[in-house]
Amino acid sequence: MIDALTLWGYWRSSTSYRIRIALGLKSLRHDYRPINLKLGEQKSEDYLAVNPHGTVPLFQAGDVQMTQSLAILDWLDATYPDPAFVPTDAPELCRDLYYAVATEIHAPNNLAVLKYLRTEFGADQAAIEAWYATWIAKTFAPVEARLAAHTWASPDLPFGQPTLFEIVLIPQVYNARRWKTDLLAYPLIAKIDAHCATLEAFDRARPENQIDAT
Amino acid sequence: MIDALTLWGYWRSSTSYRIRIALGLKSLRHDYRPINLKLGEQKSEDYLAVNPHGTVPLFQAGDVQMTQSLAILDWLDATYPDPAFVPTDAPELCRDLYYAVATEIHAPNNLAVLKYLRTEFGADQAAIEAWYATWIAKTFAPVEARLAAHTWASPDLPFGQPTLFEIVLIPQVYNARRWKTDLLAYPLIAKIDAHCATLEAFDRARPENQIDAT
Repeated sequence: MIDALTLWGYWRSSTSYRIRIALGLKSLRHDYRPINLKLGEQKSEDYLAVNPHGTVPLFQAGDVQMTQSLAILDWLDATYPDPAFVPTDAPELCRDLYYAVATEIHAPNNLAVLKYLRTEFGADQAAIEAWYATWIAKTFAPVEARLAAHTWASPDLPFGQPTLFEIVLIPQVYNARRWKTDLLAYPLIAKIDAHCATLEAFDRARPENQIDAT
Repeated sequence: MIDALTLWGYWRSSTSYRIRIALGLKSLRHDYRPINLKLGEQKSEDYLAVNPHGTVPLFQAGDVQMTQSLAILDWLDATYPDPAFVPTDAPELCRDLYYAVATEIHAPNNLAVLKYLRTEFGADQAAIEAWYATWIAKTFAPVEARLAAHTWASPDLPFGQPTLFEIVLIPQVYNARRWKTDLLAYPLIAKIDAHCATLEAFDRARPENQIDAT
């Protein structure tokens, strides 16, 4: 018996967005505690005492606390196995695409890195946008190529169900649009995105639909 | 029955280093195929045909091919469960520290990003070293704090065995030293590193001990 689930997050945080989608897919009720990154609430003494990383998300389930979105996804899928986040068909490909999207794009494009580019290298908005687009393209291009190399039963959901891959892909597509990255080069990714937008768990997890959205 | 295992890698690639440690811990024989990143072999037509990401590692086991080190680690641990990479005690903390080290440091510090800083922002060697040290410190500091907040049976190996955490931590400590990051601030991390250096799987996986080391 798991105690109440609590998620500390921020509406525009793409790693928080991952967890919101996952909780929706598992139909799990939880408390949502907004942490306003713009106001620096993640660096408050109280928050750092619980999460020394000073980041969101933070997730609590009974005595278990986790700060890493991929650790939270692992835990959710192991604790609530139905519906599964990893398909029985082509699980290795699913995980490979998942980790490519999850680990290669977010880290160079997160707020702390962009701030460093502005303050230490004097990057202006155009330079930031070029940087951002570079790391999206570097991963989206081979992911699109690998999706194109397979024959899928339905290109709407390559693995036949929402998986870890879609959980991390959709927030990155959201970011790509926000940062004006052209998605025309990635028709298969765009098709998956369009389908996921019709699913309740993905729609409810959208940044604009959070209580702390401004 | 799994066919032969093949690893394409590069001696100084920290994600290749992870897989070498993992294969050693599982006592798995494998073919090693060096890909010279300095010569751009990862961008050759032949290599891109197999791995469109143009990165190392690339891992093949029978029909299964994977390009992401975390996907390969998952597969190895699921396929060869003994010895396990995740402890039975505090598995959530282990995975949380693992993902922090695996996902936050490598992506902003990899060769493609450093090259971008040099060419687009005119970063000199001192600026590159400051950048590199920033992202190591940003993750090592909270990881050290979380290690210090627990009472461990042995600080040499907090989880009582080598885990996913050590598999990704040791290559980052190696990089930190190479880039002259001061490790005095992280005595618990340094203690784990010193102990792992005495273990055969970690020693054999060291960059200097690879056939393509120069």
